[in-house]
Amino acid sequence: MQKLELRYEGKAKKIFATDKPGILWVEFKDDATAFNGQKKGTIDNKGRYNNLISATIFKMLSDLGVENHFVELISDTEMLVKGVEIIPVELVVRNITAGSLCRRLGIKEGIRLETPLVEFYYKNDELGDPLITEDHIRVLNIAAPEEVVYLREEALKINSILIEYFRKLGIDLVDYKLEFGKTPEGKILLADEISPDTCRLWDKSTGDKLDKDRFRLDMGKVEEAYQEILRRVRG
Amino acid sequence: MQKLELRYEGKAKKIFATDKPGILWVEFKDDATAFNGQKKGTIDNKGRYNNLISATIFKMLSDLGVENHFVELISDTEMLVKGVEIIPVELVVRNITAGSLCRRLGIKEGIRLETPLVEFYYKNDELGDPLITEDHIRVLNIAAPEEVVYLREEALKINSILIEYFRKLGIDLVDYKLEFGKTPEGKILLADEISPDTCRLWDKSTGDKLDKDRFRLDMGKVEEAYQEILRRVRG
Repeated sequence: MQKLELRYEGKAKKIFATDKPGILWVEFKDDATAFNGQKKGTIDNKGRYNNLISATIFKMLSDLGVENHFVELISDTEMLVKGVEIIPVELVVRNITAGSLCRRLGIKEGIRLETPLVEFYYKNDELGDPLITEDHIRVLNIAAPEEVVYLREEALKINSILIEYFRKLGIDLVDYKLEFGKTPEGKILLADEISPDTCRLWDKSTGDKLDKDRFRLDMGKVEEAYQEILRRVRG
Repeated sequence: MQKLELRYEGKAKKIFATDKPGILWVEFKDDATAFNGQKKGTIDNKGRYNNLISATIFKMLSDLGVENHFVELISDTEMLVKGVEIIPVELVVRNITAGSLCRRLGIKEGIRLETPLVEFYYKNDELGDPLITEDHIRVLNIAAPEEVVYLREEALKINSILIEYFRKLGIDLVDYKLEFGKTPEGKILLADEISPDTCRLWDKSTGDKLDKDRFRLDMGKVEEAYQEILRRVRG
């Protein structure tokens, strides 16, 4: 497998073409951003942690029937994935109140929701990734109504699996972002990453935050949190 | 009928108790605010225009089977209404793109939507009346899921009527806000007002804005726009 030209560089990853059709080469970076890019920094070895954590979770999801873009690990900071066109709708799944939900609704952090909550955000940096409704998705014409139904159902299915997966590791899965993409054949696959960058993960016994909130909120021990998640995920 | 103590003072109206149980006395003010209270001013005779326009529209809706809080006109700036507890969810119905929708989605103003769009906003000044989803309404516990279904259906029914009503007056009904309230018996009624303060109304032939956007955007001829709507509504 040969790594070819850079196709896309995001906040946390670089994506390269390869000589194998339909396969992309992902390199995870140590760069960290927050608050829609207003805060910038670096978390030592984050690329390694997120690559290895994501790979482990994607493999686990695959084994349980959740199709996703992961193909194989190349190195500690690189993986191969199936090339998909990302649907510009970020799904946020919430099990416990935190972050922007608390600010939007004026409610306390840490309330366990009776049923999980799925939100849609328009993946658009210029607009600040705004919350959108299913009606808005229709107006924007970025996903068909039946695709939106599928995305929500798939997110809830993934949620059941991930809650249980993290529970066994002594972690509360508070909330997280999912992105999906479409293969050239039109198949929808879970894509992007699943890591402490994209999830809020609280230690079940101590309540410690083991995710990017430590960077967002200048809480210290940021690398240690990512390292701890990798340690538990590896079992 | 006797006007008793002030029960509530909002940005555009004062609401007084009366000596008749279940009946409130509404006084429309000339005060105008925009951008969540950041811009403040006065529009001459706005109280009169909005009171008379709202009364006419509420009567028309009543005649067509849309139950609402309007009882009768008292004066040019006052009406009697049924006392309801306002449900803190503002419904915005959109037929043509404008305002916050365009800013949120990064789309042009003036696009006619294929089907009307209903949005929910949390009526909460401190939080800036944020957009919310049906899931958020469930988390906030401010309306039951079946009430949300009813509100949306009622809004779409009202929309069909209002589009046609304004069309005959040479006006495009671009978008508008609706508020509903509950009687002590638990009946849901359309409440608040329907006026150039709460609707975007564009002249069908010239495209002129005949609503509060003239105030928001410092376009001049603000009072004239309200006066023109009253003139057409009165027929």
